[in-house]
Amino acid sequence: MKIGILGYGNLGRGVVQAIKQSSDMELITIFTRRNIEQFANEEGPFIHISQIEDYVDKIDVLILCGGSATDLPIQGPMYAKLFNTVDSYDNHACINEYFDAVHAAASEGGKTSIISVGWDPGLFSMNRLMAKAILPRGRTYTFWGPGVSQGHSDAVRRIEGVVDAVQFTIPLDSAIERIRYGEQPEFRPSDQHKRVCYVLVQDGYDKEKIMQQIQTMPHYFADYDTEVHFVSDEEFRDLKGKFPHGGYVIHSGTTSSRHHHMIEYSLKLESNPEFTAHILVAYARAAYRMSREGHIGAKTVFDVPLSYLSDLTSKELRNQFL
Amino acid sequence: MKIGILGYGNLGRGVVQAIKQSSDMELITIFTRRNIEQFANEEGPFIHISQIEDYVDKIDVLILCGGSATDLPIQGPMYAKLFNTVDSYDNHACINEYFDAVHAAASEGGKTSIISVGWDPGLFSMNRLMAKAILPRGRTYTFWGPGVSQGHSDAVRRIEGVVDAVQFTIPLDSAIERIRYGEQPEFRPSDQHKRVCYVLVQDGYDKEKIMQQIQTMPHYFADYDTEVHFVSDEEFRDLKGKFPHGGYVIHSGTTSSRHHHMIEYSLKLESNPEFTAHILVAYARAAYRMSREGHIGAKTVFDVPLSYLSDLTSKELRNQFL
Repeated sequence: MKIGILGYGNLGRGVVQAIKQSSDMELITIFTRRNIEQFANEEGPFIHISQIEDYVDKIDVLILCGGSATDLPIQGPMYAKLFNTVDSYDNHACINEYFDAVHAAASEGGKTSIISVGWDPGLFSMNRLMAKAILPRGRTYTFWGPGVSQGHSDAVRRIEGVVDAVQFTIPLDSAIERIRYGEQPEFRPSDQHKRVCYVLVQDGYDKEKIMQQIQTMPHYFADYDTEVHFVSDEEFRDLKGKFPHGGYVIHSGTTSSRHHHMIEYSLKLESNPEFTAHILVAYARAAYRMSREGHIGAKTVFDVPLSYLSDLTSKELRNQFL
Repeated sequence: MKIGILGYGNLGRGVVQAIKQSSDMELITIFTRRNIEQFANEEGPFIHISQIEDYVDKIDVLILCGGSATDLPIQGPMYAKLFNTVDSYDNHACINEYFDAVHAAASEGGKTSIISVGWDPGLFSMNRLMAKAILPRGRTYTFWGPGVSQGHSDAVRRIEGVVDAVQFTIPLDSAIERIRYGEQPEFRPSDQHKRVCYVLVQDGYDKEKIMQQIQTMPHYFADYDTEVHFVSDEEFRDLKGKFPHGGYVIHSGTTSSRHHHMIEYSLKLESNPEFTAHILVAYARAAYRMSREGHIGAKTVFDVPLSYLSDLTSKELRNQFL
């Protein structure tokens, strides 16, 4: 299976690593908008994006590693017409609009595109669907973290005097425990998570005031229990290189009147982009197979049989995993 | 969707309950080998199994609720020729043989049969496959319990002087914690579980001797840390009506050399047969849909897209769960 990568940020780098762990895959090239000379010391090979159409017959699946805010809404439909694609589009509110655009393009090109692959949307979505299908009389709770939220980190960075900031979302153990012990509480978001900010401040600014600005910021922090820690340059550098994340999907439901059940799925990740990259690569395998079988158009993780994620035969899967 | 049930033990009763929670399903009839007059006071309707062929055109999916030891090896292939079926065949060592027999019958009859549906095999198998496909450099551990093992309970019952017995398999927290903290230990089975037996003994038998017979029984108990509790008639009745079960699938793997990840799936069930019944009913929905789409033959949970478990449209699923 011949793979191309579009975009070489943290996610693209993770995909390169993941392909190395997949003996049925070969990395053909990494497409980038940047001047490829800046990657002279890296493994590659790198090709400028302007040449991507030359690769239409040389690549089985193109893995789109751009961001959901500005890259994917354009790149998704554009390249779904030319290649089988996989992406990690994660703007929950706009997924159906994005799906429709990619579906139209992929259908026109006779290609297969699996969108919104990752862990949320992705693995968490699959667990939410399965749990609710099995125990319809029940409630599903999703907790995120401990992990960095880019949107909240950006919000802190916009405050005057803040040089840089990282915001960690932390699920509240007390809330998780209530569900595990069989309650089905009605939570506000702030009942499930707290927010912890690490902030690097420019000399001469009032930290007390910055802390207050953060903790009272509407939508982002005002409704939450928010901790603010001011850190040194060096402490901040340590924090920035790390991308831990994870979370929980917990479904609490009943069968008969007497019997209660709990389904829990959780992830503890040391590198969010690397883990997401590994999921993308498994679904690239599925996209290639669905394309060969004539399943054309946009798909999500809900449409893909799990056997398509593996390079083993059905019989080997039954032997080793069933 | 018109559903038939074959077999009215704990699992069949659970399926009746599960169908009531599914607005897209209708229970047509329960087939039984027993004299149907004995169910005069139950809801039904009950039909003797000898009349099952009259229902070939009246039922969309037949849910097989017999046991894996003697019922399903015969009933699975026999009825896969006549009906779309779903079953919970759980003899891991013989699954491929069973698959082949059901596949031949279903293919001959132009029907769809999803075999080995439940939580292990079933949901746990799906999680083992997914975790390994995503993080191929990693190890998967399965823990069962706390819950009753029928095979081990039977083994204790065969000891002279034992009136009845229930054996609980208990996963060892110490083993789970080692994995959660990132180790990838090489476990013997006895490192992962202990066994706890509740035993009702006939008057006049030596309890010390019975305890010793249990704890030294090869294959079943000798290699395990095994606790034996002697209980009264009344305590035993309390235990017998309960079918709690559950367990964990934990995958510990790495992406790059630096980053380690943990994927954990767990179930805590108050009624093993009722929960299994709910899974069967969700997969009955899938069997019906796959049959209408022409996916003929035997299938497993690995072959079924998750969207087929739900009665919602693809767009509704994306809106509500993705």
